[in-house]
Amino acid sequence: MKKLHALIPAGGPGARLWPVSRQGKPKFLLDMLGTGYSLLQETVFRLAPFSESITVVTGIRHLATVQAQLQEAVDSKKLPVGLPVSVVAEPSARDSMAAIGLGTYLLGRKYGPAAVVGAFPADHAIPNLAPFYEAVQDAIGAAEAGYLATLGVRPTEPSTAFGYIDPTGDQVAPGAFLVKRFVEKPGFEAAQQYVEEGYLWNAGMFVMTVDTLQKGLGSNVEAMDRGLTQIVSSWNLLEQQQVLSQVWPTLQRISFDYAIAEPLADEGRVAVSALEGSGWTDLGDFKALAETETPPDPAGQHVVIDSPGALVRAPADKAVVVIGMPDAVVIDTPDALLVTTKDQAQKVREGVDSLESRGFRQYL
Amino acid sequence: MKKLHALIPAGGPGARLWPVSRQGKPKFLLDMLGTGYSLLQETVFRLAPFSESITVVTGIRHLATVQAQLQEAVDSKKLPVGLPVSVVAEPSARDSMAAIGLGTYLLGRKYGPAAVVGAFPADHAIPNLAPFYEAVQDAIGAAEAGYLATLGVRPTEPSTAFGYIDPTGDQVAPGAFLVKRFVEKPGFEAAQQYVEEGYLWNAGMFVMTVDTLQKGLGSNVEAMDRGLTQIVSSWNLLEQQQVLSQVWPTLQRISFDYAIAEPLADEGRVAVSALEGSGWTDLGDFKALAETETPPDPAGQHVVIDSPGALVRAPADKAVVVIGMPDAVVIDTPDALLVTTKDQAQKVREGVDSLESRGFRQYL
Repeated sequence: MKKLHALIPAGGPGARLWPVSRQGKPKFLLDMLGTGYSLLQETVFRLAPFSESITVVTGIRHLATVQAQLQEAVDSKKLPVGLPVSVVAEPSARDSMAAIGLGTYLLGRKYGPAAVVGAFPADHAIPNLAPFYEAVQDAIGAAEAGYLATLGVRPTEPSTAFGYIDPTGDQVAPGAFLVKRFVEKPGFEAAQQYVEEGYLWNAGMFVMTVDTLQKGLGSNVEAMDRGLTQIVSSWNLLEQQQVLSQVWPTLQRISFDYAIAEPLADEGRVAVSALEGSGWTDLGDFKALAETETPPDPAGQHVVIDSPGALVRAPADKAVVVIGMPDAVVIDTPDALLVTTKDQAQKVREGVDSLESRGFRQYL
Repeated sequence: MKKLHALIPAGGPGARLWPVSRQGKPKFLLDMLGTGYSLLQETVFRLAPFSESITVVTGIRHLATVQAQLQEAVDSKKLPVGLPVSVVAEPSARDSMAAIGLGTYLLGRKYGPAAVVGAFPADHAIPNLAPFYEAVQDAIGAAEAGYLATLGVRPTEPSTAFGYIDPTGDQVAPGAFLVKRFVEKPGFEAAQQYVEEGYLWNAGMFVMTVDTLQKGLGSNVEAMDRGLTQIVSSWNLLEQQQVLSQVWPTLQRISFDYAIAEPLADEGRVAVSALEGSGWTDLGDFKALAETETPPDPAGQHVVIDSPGALVRAPADKAVVVIGMPDAVVIDTPDALLVTTKDQAQKVREGVDSLESRGFRQYL
């Protein structure tokens, strides 16, 4: 099996999963699936078999929790002995390009420009691993051939929650095809058309050599390349903190997709390997989460009447009665309650924004 | 103003208002309207102006709380000085005939058979008092003329939540008309027809002399007349508790409507005075309660998005977000949560029954 250096950008508040996911304890730190491990830990377990090293990039406020969770993952004996697992703290959130860039430049310093790096979000779930491993192998092949490789998820429905990848039929490496373009989250009708035309969901998983990323950044977001180079050159030296605190805040806030993936696609330098039958989900909202849930216990204290498809989460010592609410989403926590439907699940962020604008930061 | 001896049967768990109303603290003991007083206290205040005495009949488990609330009502200075206010405890719940019967027989012993007694539920709300006082005066007149008088509420909609009273045009006293029959809670179409034909809601308010009740019971539910006579004859004597504990459990479980009101209507001895424009509500379910609510505070921590008509009740220190749920009913308490719609509000009892059958008595 080909291996890579795994990079896990662990950020984002998961606001659409409020009130389960909070700013202080976002979904990647939570056991969202009832496995006994957080999504971050599950991600580490999932990547380990093809990883030469694993690096988590996260915000400074989550550093202690991430370190503790990584230690727990190591102690679980679910990781190969000797696999290097480390964490890098961002002083502040400056979007995904800075996060992935910092991790990749650090890996480049340690493992050289030909090292293959794979960036995988910390908060996804992939129940069936075999197709995932196969797609990663194909992506590594394309990365070694000089492409920015991405994993595209074969759509199971015309979702409006994801951006799409438009692949060509041109194979650039085994199982990897040239990408024509990335498209933004579409409306429902456009999504239907994309699915018919064989577009894939953009799941934010990228595999590339350090060199590919550095050259791409150098020609597209030159200031970021310069800033990251400066930060990394002082890493582990006495002046690390000083340089980091001076340079990091100057880095452009831009997503990896805008900064690199789209420009390189225009240059014909992006390849995609399709991920199919893996049951992948980004657990992006409660509709997605509901698909991983088991039905309510018919002998439990959560009573659901005339409400097929309802999702109920509440503390174990709380009685809940839901009546006449098909596809309801009822999420109760000690200090905050959400009531909506699966169809409205993407609007949860509006509610969180309202709480914030009303000054109730303690609930975010 | 004519006066009567007011009797307030204070019982019933108010299960359709769960989880606000609980078996241990039912709605009549709660400040459901945010006035600072319980529904029972508000009822006492409402009846006081036309009452020679006020007697509350309640279950033994609520005795201490009722006594404390009555003391608070007296201390509030909202009652006429010297108005006798007392409470009678039922050893167990045996439906409304036994409760009203016990109170009425006790009043008869003290004030004689010609005393006029008015029974008024403890958990209703009447915002506009003038029409209520007028209807009570008419009912007292009919009671003095020997009728079992009832107040019938002029319907504001074809509700299926109430029984109906079919009045004739025969006036038996000023503002009081002979009743042809009582009808059970109808379906929607029958309710529409009833409203068109001028039927009134049966609100469970009755006015009669002690003599009318005793004779009616004697000829219709003779065993209850005998049992109540036996209990009342020992009242305040050494053997009171012994007789009560022996005889009370033998009394038939039957409602006042079935035991007395319907048989006497068949005999042409029931009169009704119409109650109109009083804003009367029995606060029977959350749909009824919602009509007394003010809209959510747009600066508060309860955020309601795309949900016109939604009713949200939650602790003041809890954040709530409701999205895309028109006419939702969201009632949160520390240990129990209800989510339904106004249209389904009458089914809340099913949820409570489910909790009970699953063994979760602590939430009832």
